[in-house]
Amino acid sequence: MIECQAIGTVRSRFLDPVGMPIQTAAVPDEAGRVELLPAFAPGLKDIEGFEFLILITHLHRVTQERLEVVPFLDDVAHGVFATRAPTRPNRLGLSVVRLERVEGTVLHFTGSDMLDGTPVLDIKPYVPRFDARETQRIGWFSRRIDAVAGVRADNRMG
Amino acid sequence: MIECQAIGTVRSRFLDPVGMPIQTAAVPDEAGRVELLPAFAPGLKDIEGFEFLILITHLHRVTQERLEVVPFLDDVAHGVFATRAPTRPNRLGLSVVRLERVEGTVLHFTGSDMLDGTPVLDIKPYVPRFDARETQRIGWFSRRIDAVAGVRADNRMG
Repeated sequence: MIECQAIGTVRSRFLDPVGMPIQTAAVPDEAGRVELLPAFAPGLKDIEGFEFLILITHLHRVTQERLEVVPFLDDVAHGVFATRAPTRPNRLGLSVVRLERVEGTVLHFTGSDMLDGTPVLDIKPYVPRFDARETQRIGWFSRRIDAVAGVRADNRMG
Repeated sequence: MIECQAIGTVRSRFLDPVGMPIQTAAVPDEAGRVELLPAFAPGLKDIEGFEFLILITHLHRVTQERLEVVPFLDDVAHGVFATRAPTRPNRLGLSVVRLERVEGTVLHFTGSDMLDGTPVLDIKPYVPRFDARETQRIGWFSRRIDAVAGVRADNRMG
């Protein structure tokens, strides 16, 4: 077993999984914030120089881990590692958000696809040279990707 | 405390942190593989349709967690959340790799910046609409990014 601890908490207007946006890219203007635990404050030095941050989170409200899942964007099952569904082993979430401003230990961002109260496990600066790839090979998403802006979460991950 | 478990293990030719490439983008042709634990095999269904995968890993050889760190690419200290240094709280790694082929529960990939034996915590399909952003605002990296292909890890993270 590998133990992790929350370094902070996401605050957003989403109090319930049902009806949430399913990706930050679908809601680029949705505001949220990370409230970092004060003990980690020195880790923020120079973070204001970055436009985007990667948040690794614990999807704390997921009650099941499934290896095959019908994702929000589709109506047939795929292996969970071929989806971004939250019902995955270790329940780790990945969100790329736009850093709007830093106030002490609070990171204000836009692009919130996270529930209020979501524990944050890591914050990394987004660097296109490291993190961006061009590809057309996106598996089953190629049939469904244009729906992402309109689709919202439902209760299938409960 | 949040408990995670390895879903598999990275195999690579890097047996020691010193001398390793520091990002997958620096070594696009470096081969490696994920050996998934057999229990998670159903989670791979349809994964072969994706060109790139995101691996979230546990940086198991890191012995210290530091909040301010002099990263491999620089010679001055930054907050760890403004760097990609491994000596971070929770020691989570993020690697975007190119999936070359799937053999049973083994994922062969290129772009290995990971130590042999690294525990894998999650595998997500890389989808540019979700994961790629364009930005010039990359903080202190803007002075250093061109060095990434040549810089290798040293013993400062021990």
